[in-house]
Amino acid sequence: MYYLGVDLGGMSIKAGLVNEAYEIVATKTIPTGRGKSSKEVLKDMAMLCKDVLTEANLTEADIDSIGIGSPGIASPEDGIILSSSNLNFDHVNVRAEIQKYLSCDVYVENDANCAALGEAIAGAAKGEKNVVVVTLGTGVGGGIINDGKIYRGAFCGAGEVGHQVIVKDGITCGCGRKGCWEQYASATALIRQAQEVTKEHINSKIVSFAGGKIENITAKNVFDAAQAGDHIAAEVLKKYFQYVAMGLTNLINILEPSMIVLGGGMSAQGDYLVKPIKEFVQAEMYGGLSLKTKIRAAELGNPAGIIGAALLGTTIK
Amino acid sequence: MYYLGVDLGGMSIKAGLVNEAYEIVATKTIPTGRGKSSKEVLKDMAMLCKDVLTEANLTEADIDSIGIGSPGIASPEDGIILSSSNLNFDHVNVRAEIQKYLSCDVYVENDANCAALGEAIAGAAKGEKNVVVVTLGTGVGGGIINDGKIYRGAFCGAGEVGHQVIVKDGITCGCGRKGCWEQYASATALIRQAQEVTKEHINSKIVSFAGGKIENITAKNVFDAAQAGDHIAAEVLKKYFQYVAMGLTNLINILEPSMIVLGGGMSAQGDYLVKPIKEFVQAEMYGGLSLKTKIRAAELGNPAGIIGAALLGTTIK
Repeated sequence: MYYLGVDLGGMSIKAGLVNEAYEIVATKTIPTGRGKSSKEVLKDMAMLCKDVLTEANLTEADIDSIGIGSPGIASPEDGIILSSSNLNFDHVNVRAEIQKYLSCDVYVENDANCAALGEAIAGAAKGEKNVVVVTLGTGVGGGIINDGKIYRGAFCGAGEVGHQVIVKDGITCGCGRKGCWEQYASATALIRQAQEVTKEHINSKIVSFAGGKIENITAKNVFDAAQAGDHIAAEVLKKYFQYVAMGLTNLINILEPSMIVLGGGMSAQGDYLVKPIKEFVQAEMYGGLSLKTKIRAAELGNPAGIIGAALLGTTIK
Repeated sequence: MYYLGVDLGGMSIKAGLVNEAYEIVATKTIPTGRGKSSKEVLKDMAMLCKDVLTEANLTEADIDSIGIGSPGIASPEDGIILSSSNLNFDHVNVRAEIQKYLSCDVYVENDANCAALGEAIAGAAKGEKNVVVVTLGTGVGGGIINDGKIYRGAFCGAGEVGHQVIVKDGITCGCGRKGCWEQYASATALIRQAQEVTKEHINSKIVSFAGGKIENITAKNVFDAAQAGDHIAAEVLKKYFQYVAMGLTNLINILEPSMIVLGGGMSAQGDYLVKPIKEFVQAEMYGGLSLKTKIRAAELGNPAGIIGAALLGTTIK
């Protein structure tokens, strides 16, 4: 048996065939196409799925279901995308459209939730019961997996862990609040923090790793500089890790997952990211009790979204 | 069919018989007794349960199960209290002890979780799917109910919603962190906030309602003064409500429950508590979207704990 997963983005549609070992065995990508109607986009998507099957010498009968990860809010059990500003989709019945071309079960889900499900079933949190996947990227996203299923909340919008205020009257966030975790713990925030500090410390290796230009600093530059012994970089990272740990400890006190998985581009830093954060979280544990929740870097990277989408049906049916 | 619920506290043990309409139809209380062993305490509890049954002309055969709410951490499915500093219980097999005297199913659960379950099944959140009960009392406690069952987390310690940091480097909390919500949103915090302000405004009605003594101010005095037109009290409450709303919005963004129930002594204020808080939460909603989560005051008061404990078995079996 195989599973078809689709990553539906504003720029491209990527379909992947996943086997029972949770590996992607075939994949194809097409542009989403600006200005197309939802019907056109979904027809293109159905054809893409057919192409992937044909290339793998399979038919619809060989697949368990198709799962689609999309930005915005989806109602997975109904197969409907309720809203997605990236795609300009408003209450689109994805299942009905796809089933015009392919006779198989179709599910849709928010893309961040799909990525979390992928890590929970097939990645860093394989075998864990309660998992929170926190993505430290442009923003801070999240997905909550409870008993092997996505926890969606009452209106399919749960898991916005980046939008917890941790600094009263802090930095204004895109969501409208002030002091959201996202403003302190995202990769974007780390870059801003490094830029502020290097203005006063222009000789820091952070700046030389960025080709001498403060405006070109990346998150990786800060890690590289710290690993090359730069004290300024180490200080920037220390403060950043403390911010990350604050929000993670909040999540542990509220949800007490068995594991937290840190995703996003920075997860490539592995222990350089996870080890210090774990120590700061331990320091914030209730009454000094020892930290039971495991914290680990994501393992699957970008394919997590396709794998999670592909396996959606197995968690819903 | 009836259900037996027990509220096991450091000072007293209270047993209540609950009918199928979720009403307490008989209740008895005994002192816990200082210095008693766990075996003695549990024998007393079993006898208390027998007494309640006898008085109601019932036998063990008439009850579905016994549920016990206890401070500390319990493993409900095993019937074990893992730790309770209030009771000095350490890995006590409550089920085995009680079943020496009564042949029926026995479950144990943290008392705050029992109270949350009571409100979710029989109180303000009757019929709601995902509920967070937040208790604004001496501290800020919580219980998360998901699909009609208590969400316990991986190690039976979830729901510590009061211990989310909302003010970086804020007031030191009993848990060891700085700036926990509990330090700003508990009844204790409201009293402290009122005391600080009335030092400068000794003519506020808050002080006269407290018998002229700042040190005697209660949370109710602040509400009473505001309702009597005192501007200082209104200002104190406004800031307090904003703190409450900050933590509630964090919980909504993370968990998106269908309803939040506000419990604790202050829930008696009803709309005077709930209405302004709702408005502040609405103002913090993601991108100005309208608030879908209902917010309501608890309805059951103290009996929530016994009713929730009594119904534990129905959510586990």
